[in-house]
Amino acid sequence: MQIAMIQDSILPLSGLDAAYLDRGIFFGDGVYEVLRSYNGRIFALDEHLDRFAASLAAVEIHGVDIDQVRRRVLEAFEAAGGGQAKIYFHVTRGSAPRDHLCDENLNPNFFLTATELRTDPKVKDAGIAVSIHPDWRWKRCDIKSLNLLANVLARRDAAKKGCAEAILVDESQLITEGAGSAFFAIFGRSLRTCPLTANVLPSITRKFVIEAAAGVGLDVVEKPLSPAEAAEADELFIGVTTQDIVPVTRFDGKTVSSGRCGQYTNRLCERFLAFTRG
Amino acid sequence: MQIAMIQDSILPLSGLDAAYLDRGIFFGDGVYEVLRSYNGRIFALDEHLDRFAASLAAVEIHGVDIDQVRRRVLEAFEAAGGGQAKIYFHVTRGSAPRDHLCDENLNPNFFLTATELRTDPKVKDAGIAVSIHPDWRWKRCDIKSLNLLANVLARRDAAKKGCAEAILVDESQLITEGAGSAFFAIFGRSLRTCPLTANVLPSITRKFVIEAAAGVGLDVVEKPLSPAEAAEADELFIGVTTQDIVPVTRFDGKTVSSGRCGQYTNRLCERFLAFTRG
Repeated sequence: MQIAMIQDSILPLSGLDAAYLDRGIFFGDGVYEVLRSYNGRIFALDEHLDRFAASLAAVEIHGVDIDQVRRRVLEAFEAAGGGQAKIYFHVTRGSAPRDHLCDENLNPNFFLTATELRTDPKVKDAGIAVSIHPDWRWKRCDIKSLNLLANVLARRDAAKKGCAEAILVDESQLITEGAGSAFFAIFGRSLRTCPLTANVLPSITRKFVIEAAAGVGLDVVEKPLSPAEAAEADELFIGVTTQDIVPVTRFDGKTVSSGRCGQYTNRLCERFLAFTRG
Repeated sequence: MQIAMIQDSILPLSGLDAAYLDRGIFFGDGVYEVLRSYNGRIFALDEHLDRFAASLAAVEIHGVDIDQVRRRVLEAFEAAGGGQAKIYFHVTRGSAPRDHLCDENLNPNFFLTATELRTDPKVKDAGIAVSIHPDWRWKRCDIKSLNLLANVLARRDAAKKGCAEAILVDESQLITEGAGSAFFAIFGRSLRTCPLTANVLPSITRKFVIEAAAGVGLDVVEKPLSPAEAAEADELFIGVTTQDIVPVTRFDGKTVSSGRCGQYTNRLCERFLAFTRG
């Protein structure tokens, strides 16, 4: 007999809810996006859907209609009452008994949550503390996949150190990005961030930060930096969909510059918010 | 309102089956094992449970009673009717709305399947073809985690090339292991395999292969090899729990030596089977 066991309960394999046989849980065989709304409107939906389509293509999950995903996102946002919301969704290759390979006609699973987004305005003034952690992630971080255990472990380590984010450092001792964010440093009138490679997520927030930089008189230098360089920056911040720009005022145990949100970071925040008012 | 959406159905987040909020699916935040039985008895249960405990500790999933896991495995095996079975189980950090961090008191989720194991005896004579693929996995492959998308993609690539396994090649152009197996080469009286590092799973089959090697007069050399070296080996094989030793007769498009299961591989298979008779 083919059986399954959930905690202490034994049941026939055929009687399982499809969620238990999701390739998402067996392999992380799926991709995801996180969106947020400002002023009752989802921000950068097209950009997120474009990236989602690229992630699906990269892992060869075919047959997902992006227009249907768009409709589902909008419908869920409305059903959740609009307002300030955080929308998470993923698509996995489908459900089947565990095997690396599967039927190519498996029906992909779509799952979404829409929840109220609470943001703390004090964070924008006081900033956050970040710690560093080895970048243990896989070598295709340009794909926004469900393989996030390295991110979880890095974030857990940060929390133990009283930090809100872990900044990941690769084997060359250079910063790639945060466990759940893009990472930026300002030196004089120069904005520094890691270039987009196979090891870095093409962050939507990063794209808008770079666009904002021109407007505030910052030159953009896409070149990785070391933790030692970051610690000496005039300003540091992270970029993340749910909070856009968040100043970093402590880096790896050291106070960054004045210990408060810097002037350029402030101006970038303002310009970013202008984009959200579109 | 906090809502969820499964395909086209919208429902309150609070009404979801815990399986939909499993950290296993959001992050691959869990670890697993695969066991098989020979002659109505599970092979190397202690070794698998020891490795499972090590994986749990490495990802800081606490509070899992390994004796309870052992009892569940044995109970499921019996409920499945014994015989020749494949047993898969995983433990995840638990179910909660998606957030990298979670309540430390979350109750871990245990899930198991026990299915009939079908093996094809012809494979042991004819061997399998393998292809090579870049090792895109994370940097802690010593942990048997649910982050397996790189393995799935490598295995899909192999299947497209008509191959049964993908042999993973790291950035130094050296072989680490197979997407779902340990990899071995024989040169003269020397058995070569990658040493155990953070990038290689401490395979239970590998352990027994190394034990068997002494009995058949092979010296063991734990040193990584390149694809070019592998292609010139006298014999190649993979080691995997569900099939123990499987000869590799085609490597990256080239026939290996005689193109049949080699003499040492044959003797290792025999000794391995002796272990399973305990």
